[in-house]
Amino acid sequence: MFAEDQLSDDKFLCGRLRLLQPLKGYRAATDPVLLAAACPAEPGESVLDLGCGAGAAALCLGWRVPGLALAGLELQPDYAELARRNAGRNGLALAVHEGDLARMPAALRRDFDHVIANPPYYPPGGSPSPRQDRARAMRVETPLADWVAAATRRLRPGGWLTLICGADGLPEVLAAMAPKLGSASVLPLAARQGRPALRILLRARKGGRAAFRLLAPLVVHAGPAHDGDRESYTAEANAVLREGADLAAYFR
Amino acid sequence: MFAEDQLSDDKFLCGRLRLLQPLKGYRAATDPVLLAAACPAEPGESVLDLGCGAGAAALCLGWRVPGLALAGLELQPDYAELARRNAGRNGLALAVHEGDLARMPAALRRDFDHVIANPPYYPPGGSPSPRQDRARAMRVETPLADWVAAATRRLRPGGWLTLICGADGLPEVLAAMAPKLGSASVLPLAARQGRPALRILLRARKGGRAAFRLLAPLVVHAGPAHDGDRESYTAEANAVLREGADLAAYFR
Repeated sequence: MFAEDQLSDDKFLCGRLRLLQPLKGYRAATDPVLLAAACPAEPGESVLDLGCGAGAAALCLGWRVPGLALAGLELQPDYAELARRNAGRNGLALAVHEGDLARMPAALRRDFDHVIANPPYYPPGGSPSPRQDRARAMRVETPLADWVAAATRRLRPGGWLTLICGADGLPEVLAAMAPKLGSASVLPLAARQGRPALRILLRARKGGRAAFRLLAPLVVHAGPAHDGDRESYTAEANAVLREGADLAAYFR
Repeated sequence: MFAEDQLSDDKFLCGRLRLLQPLKGYRAATDPVLLAAACPAEPGESVLDLGCGAGAAALCLGWRVPGLALAGLELQPDYAELARRNAGRNGLALAVHEGDLARMPAALRRDFDHVIANPPYYPPGGSPSPRQDRARAMRVETPLADWVAAATRRLRPGGWLTLICGADGLPEVLAAMAPKLGSASVLPLAARQGRPALRILLRARKGGRAAFRLLAPLVVHAGPAHDGDRESYTAEANAVLREGADLAAYFR
């Protein structure tokens, strides 16, 4: 369990959500917020967050879409406990189960309308990322393909996987989707206009048969370079990251 | 053989190249020009154009890069003959062989530094394309995976495949590349800013181990919609399609 003095109380969506997070180790930033914005869940549907950490993605989604049945799977007990606390502090219901995605807890061995996932990320070239610390702490390096396989098993026919990962992971993710997931769309996430995508948001449907689509990128930062401490989100990114808008229009 | 009155004499690269093309059937437009612009061939290297048609891609490449050893494979004898005529008319050397990529002619069973390919395209949703006519005429529907496999066999270790195809074909192409081709980069081609990619340019290296990269899109048309008969290329597209510039900076 994290000691209280090892936690920070962070604002998400301009303070609409507040999440306790460990000062050291994995700390959610923009990825879980973007992931939640890309999930097409509708009121009353069920959602499983694979590797929910402190609950950022599931709780952003629960804040935006009322009446969801939200469940989370988390390997590390201290993060699982934090996710439960964060759900309660924000008045949202999130059933957090501890366990490994390769050995799914019995309580989660059922069908979900949606699975969302933000797997730990090992960037090419080796520059460190917060998730890398977490992965090291977990002493596991679960391949992306295993995340996709576990998610696919948990989806009902016609259910949607929404996933965020490094752009370098696209070949592995697409290969793991076939043949059970289809109708995939990829939304590239670029730090700046004209730059390669660092991350991608991917949506795919169990049993989907529509053609693969490569969407126009979402550019996160305005201007050609980082501008010190000033906010530099594009209007599109600002709507999602600060106002809690969804990304439905991008996937249309 | 095409009758002379079934041919048009078309300008490519603002008239720097002139290509005889059949009035009916497959007619090259922007795809082979973009394909040639994406190929990183350097003077003195060897290039095989799989399915060279009337020679547009190979000859655009030969125009831009001096001293290449250019070869083409074409299934249809009338197109192969046209490619030979087009090479001669433009003062370029292109050795065109008739044959099927699944049964490679003996003369082409050697290693190349580069393979380029613009496979016939069946757009999702079924709206007709010129290449569809051609594919029907050929009465073959060779899967994209077979194009990638044939190209891979023809590449020397460290050689580059450069391919243009529908964006919907990306999962099949990536799956076919593994494990022999790597260091892949995808350049999405979008008709307009903010629209999904309709086509992609892909570069991959035999034996490459670098991370997959998803590049910023090349937007072909300026403005929000087609503007009647007026030219509407973006400056970037204009440089490639009219001036014959390469796309090297995009793949850096």
